[in-house]
Amino acid sequence: MEFLPGVFRFRFGQPENGTPSQQMYVKPPRREAMAELPHAEPPFDASQIKFTVSRRGCRLELPLTSGEDIYGLGLNLKSLRHTGKKRTLRVNSDPATDTGDSHAPAPLYFTTAGYGVLVDTARYASFYCGGNAHLNPKEETRAPEQGGVKLSEAELYALDSSASAPMVIDIPAAPGVDLYLFTGPALLDAVRRYVLFTGGGALPPEWGLGCWYRTCGASDAAQVLAMAKELRDKSIPCDVLGLEPGWQSKAYSCSFKWSPERFPQPDRTVAALNNMGYHVNLWEHLFTHPTSPIYRDLVPYSGDFKVWDGAVPDLTLAPASECFASYHARTFTSRGISSFKLDECDNSDFISSPWSFPECSQFPSGQDGETMHSMLGMLYMETIGRACRKSNIRTYGSVRNAHAFAPPQPFVLYSDLYDHAEFIRGVTTCGFSGMLWTPELRHAVSPEDYLRRLQAMVLSPQMLLNIWSMPHPPWRQLRRELNSAGEFYPEEEQLRLEKATRDILELRMRFLPYLYAAFAEYSFHGTPPFRALTMDVPDDPRLRDVDYAWMAGDRLLAVPFRAGMTELTVPLPEGDWYDFHTGEKYTGEVTLRPAPEELPILVKGSAVVPLAEPVPHITDGMKFKLRLKCFGDAPRPARLFADDGFSFAYENETPRWGEVRADGTLSPELAARYEVLP
Amino acid sequence: MEFLPGVFRFRFGQPENGTPSQQMYVKPPRREAMAELPHAEPPFDASQIKFTVSRRGCRLELPLTSGEDIYGLGLNLKSLRHTGKKRTLRVNSDPATDTGDSHAPAPLYFTTAGYGVLVDTARYASFYCGGNAHLNPKEETRAPEQGGVKLSEAELYALDSSASAPMVIDIPAAPGVDLYLFTGPALLDAVRRYVLFTGGGALPPEWGLGCWYRTCGASDAAQVLAMAKELRDKSIPCDVLGLEPGWQSKAYSCSFKWSPERFPQPDRTVAALNNMGYHVNLWEHLFTHPTSPIYRDLVPYSGDFKVWDGAVPDLTLAPASECFASYHARTFTSRGISSFKLDECDNSDFISSPWSFPECSQFPSGQDGETMHSMLGMLYMETIGRACRKSNIRTYGSVRNAHAFAPPQPFVLYSDLYDHAEFIRGVTTCGFSGMLWTPELRHAVSPEDYLRRLQAMVLSPQMLLNIWSMPHPPWRQLRRELNSAGEFYPEEEQLRLEKATRDILELRMRFLPYLYAAFAEYSFHGTPPFRALTMDVPDDPRLRDVDYAWMAGDRLLAVPFRAGMTELTVPLPEGDWYDFHTGEKYTGEVTLRPAPEELPILVKGSAVVPLAEPVPHITDGMKFKLRLKCFGDAPRPARLFADDGFSFAYENETPRWGEVRADGTLSPELAARYEVLP
Repeated sequence: MEFLPGVFRFRFGQPENGTPSQQMYVKPPRREAMAELPHAEPPFDASQIKFTVSRRGCRLELPLTSGEDIYGLGLNLKSLRHTGKKRTLRVNSDPATDTGDSHAPAPLYFTTAGYGVLVDTARYASFYCGGNAHLNPKEETRAPEQGGVKLSEAELYALDSSASAPMVIDIPAAPGVDLYLFTGPALLDAVRRYVLFTGGGALPPEWGLGCWYRTCGASDAAQVLAMAKELRDKSIPCDVLGLEPGWQSKAYSCSFKWSPERFPQPDRTVAALNNMGYHVNLWEHLFTHPTSPIYRDLVPYSGDFKVWDGAVPDLTLAPASECFASYHARTFTSRGISSFKLDECDNSDFISSPWSFPECSQFPSGQDGETMHSMLGMLYMETIGRACRKSNIRTYGSVRNAHAFAPPQPFVLYSDLYDHAEFIRGVTTCGFSGMLWTPELRHAVSPEDYLRRLQAMVLSPQMLLNIWSMPHPPWRQLRRELNSAGEFYPEEEQLRLEKATRDILELRMRFLPYLYAAFAEYSFHGTPPFRALTMDVPDDPRLRDVDYAWMAGDRLLAVPFRAGMTELTVPLPEGDWYDFHTGEKYTGEVTLRPAPEELPILVKGSAVVPLAEPVPHITDGMKFKLRLKCFGDAPRPARLFADDGFSFAYENETPRWGEVRADGTLSPELAARYEVLP
Repeated sequence: MEFLPGVFRFRFGQPENGTPSQQMYVKPPRREAMAELPHAEPPFDASQIKFTVSRRGCRLELPLTSGEDIYGLGLNLKSLRHTGKKRTLRVNSDPATDTGDSHAPAPLYFTTAGYGVLVDTARYASFYCGGNAHLNPKEETRAPEQGGVKLSEAELYALDSSASAPMVIDIPAAPGVDLYLFTGPALLDAVRRYVLFTGGGALPPEWGLGCWYRTCGASDAAQVLAMAKELRDKSIPCDVLGLEPGWQSKAYSCSFKWSPERFPQPDRTVAALNNMGYHVNLWEHLFTHPTSPIYRDLVPYSGDFKVWDGAVPDLTLAPASECFASYHARTFTSRGISSFKLDECDNSDFISSPWSFPECSQFPSGQDGETMHSMLGMLYMETIGRACRKSNIRTYGSVRNAHAFAPPQPFVLYSDLYDHAEFIRGVTTCGFSGMLWTPELRHAVSPEDYLRRLQAMVLSPQMLLNIWSMPHPPWRQLRRELNSAGEFYPEEEQLRLEKATRDILELRMRFLPYLYAAFAEYSFHGTPPFRALTMDVPDDPRLRDVDYAWMAGDRLLAVPFRAGMTELTVPLPEGDWYDFHTGEKYTGEVTLRPAPEELPILVKGSAVVPLAEPVPHITDGMKFKLRLKCFGDAPRPARLFADDGFSFAYENETPRWGEVRADGTLSPELAARYEVLP
């Protein structure tokens, strides 16, 4: 049945309790925006979906057509396209191979045929994406026998072709399941429909799209304040300072109390940071140490296994979730804290020191460890988001797990894994599941690696220098031991890296209004701000495996380079493209050879790109001074969004969209927040 | 309840159909041998085992004591000791990380406290081996808070200690399960009890313990015969020649028909090989191609998905199994074939060209793909073993999957993976599950690597040169491209490597009576022929992680070196140990520095080691000429076993055990098969 405009729901068997839709469908769908999308017939109807159920769980089979490529299934660091592969949605923070293991898997895929499917389950489902054909007892015995003998495993194992193989979905334990089908007609329309269905994408506050710096985990208040001052003194843009585990009296598991040794006067420290224009982000995870003030209250509502000696609160239960949220509001968000880093809500069960609760854990609500692992990040975001809202804070934070219904949650995924190609790929895969991901900087093996890693974040969901393991800024010394020992680069090299850092961070700040508008588009119309090229142009087979470049907003293509790369040829969708830096025009493809300090960016078609004059940090309601870069003969105006940029007021007012035109004029809606410099 | 002497069975809930014991408990237990083992009280009783069941499956919790170390869970290439880890028994041929993924997982563990537990399930169960402690709501709030701040993930994630954490077993789907407890008192007694419970270990024919050579997959009959002749001409010991996929008219999937191009007169070819003293082994897998003569008969008894376009016969059903076995007897085992390589009965679902059937497949018997994957190797071995027995052939073969109840099956596990440390480790892990594993030679990156890899097999279940990808013997050229092009090493180097190969293979042949006796001990008394040191001496903490050396039989310790190693210090169990080559005595530990041509072997205590004069191949019922190596002051006699070495006669006669003494005398039971040379 048509559940919402262009969204069909099919019910098979009797769905279990605690599915993503039951737990996390927390925002009303944006029905009007969905209705505005073009109409498309569903690619198949319920009669073409095969369903069987057994004690083992249920199995769904959906038709696939030849040449149809599969994307999605959550954050995927190992691959973009899933066609022919098996993916098991196991929550795991250390995926070593291309299995579907992920910080943030999601039972949701989209295809180049222009539709999407959400399987409403929190189980570790497996998706066989068209690689397994059925035995057909009536099939003719095929004539061709063996030609040449093959002498490598790769040749032996390669399957001829299996055009007729279906999508097979294996859902453990569940006696039934709801399936949601999102129609196109275009692939991007289907993605938009999903995002709008979940309530629309997150709209971060402007400060959230600024620059982030996480300070050393061992820092005390004085050291944090000194770092805050150093950043301002050096004019390194920074909106958010993050504190790592050392802020707590006990971490691993968490007390959620300030360390009396390191932060004896937290209110004073936080106020000092706020006064310097910083938002403060606190690291935590939800495993609650016995010394925490909320431990006793949470224990009756916790799972039956401990993690790092801490209780695991069952956030599906109101008493636990409300205890957690109220404590955070009372202790933190009402006292100058506006953001959190929600660590380790994924699962790491196969490393040398495995952690988190077993999948067979039992929670007081009746949830088990498997479904709880799938939903833990979502529940945690919702709880912390509520704490922030209690203090009227529109937050933007970090999280290590997400699932279906992620789009409205204002949190960005990150990882301890650190392969740069994978970090870049993550941006291209995330959009298909309405998730946000940052290819954060933690450390770098060389100045080149450092600059490339910084650049990869400029047009990403979050610009984050996570310097948790070093006491001094990375531009003074990249090697941890030396940095810790205060052994810095020669002055000249420090200054070179400091300047390069400032330039890259200022580039981020220049793009901030453009990115903010892309997020507003995500929120109101469902278009992910960062998208694999194939999402926009699924019919171009050259683009289907492009996992190293992405569209940011409607007109920019980011092609971050990695250390060691000197040249890259990128296929371009039809039309004219312009080099952002030189203005040179390309069609068909472009071969890039950027300088080490330069992030390659291409502009789609003749267009205006508005750039803000960089500021060290955002101020609530500030007015952005824009300079325009115009490309081509008839530059399309840029759309910007002009709410106050920090409060929830935008939820109840007519969206303030407006245009910036090549001639420097602005729509009146934008006047309060933007001016164009001559 | 005490099910068999020292074996207790506990039933929880209602076990499902198709468990390992229901399908593969095919040999009667060796009850008398079990009764002869020393008595031990069970370490816990049923009341101490916690059981819960839900639609998700069932959960068992068994007590563990502090310092108790966990071993087993099948073939494990990634680690020997499982304490504190999670292991999921997923059948997978490409385990990349230490998760429990394995060609041959088994729901069976043993601990240093001297007992074993078999969980009778074919599900992909997870074992949390003491790493997860329960939340105790009554626990005192613990005082200690954070000391120093940690600045690495390894430090952060390390758990203090969890002495009180249980073994938690998570079994999907099953509404209940039987659990078998094997008492000690010693760890080795518990392992023996398990092996005897399953019917006793496999006793290969003597020829199976000789040397194996797999010929190039592209070879035709003339080329195979030429290789057979070359091995004899060069006096390279070889008992079994293996033919790779090219012998079939169609492989991937299989026709089970001889290729009319490459093997136009198979009976004549096989007879010629037999006449040269070779046993012939045929590669196959069970996925049956439409052009196979048995395809039409198998289709009605096959799973609902194809693999490589072939049907997957449901070997739990008599019509399928009997069709398969009869065809093999009729076509192969009655016509000179005595051994098979059962490939790809595991599962490879996450590689770039994934293969095998989905875990949600449905089979006509009611089994699903998950349980079928667990049992596929066992069912396949049983079926092929039946074909051999129809032709009165006591076989020894190769297989890529096994599970519980593996001990009586005369098949050796192998892998496409090729890390030498992992290959060596496999020998140490396999014994805990009553499985056999060969660190086969496929190729080598250098002559040193080649010799080290050969040496590692001398005291292993199978001495196998798997030269399937090269037309010429490896001692002529190790690099595949050059070998294929006929570009060989200089004559002198060829001769050096040929001689070194011959020496190593002849060393294998010298140990053959000793190894055969170790297998007879396995068969009649349950002692695995190859054992991690810790299995024999669990109380010595220095030995618990020794995954690079193993006991072979009762008195030899093999310490294979890998390429690049020059020196290794090995902790030795209490008592005197002797260098096999020099006779030097060691206690406590030994530092080894073997020459590249030398496999380090240590002899336990003062002992006789009987060595056979090498022969190019075993002849049925032949008489072995022994030379004795004696170590220490009062060498313990060696036990040998003297059935005919090739038929099933031993099953119905009094076991013919006898002693070889340091003075060169023999027990009369041995006289027909052995003589001692002066």
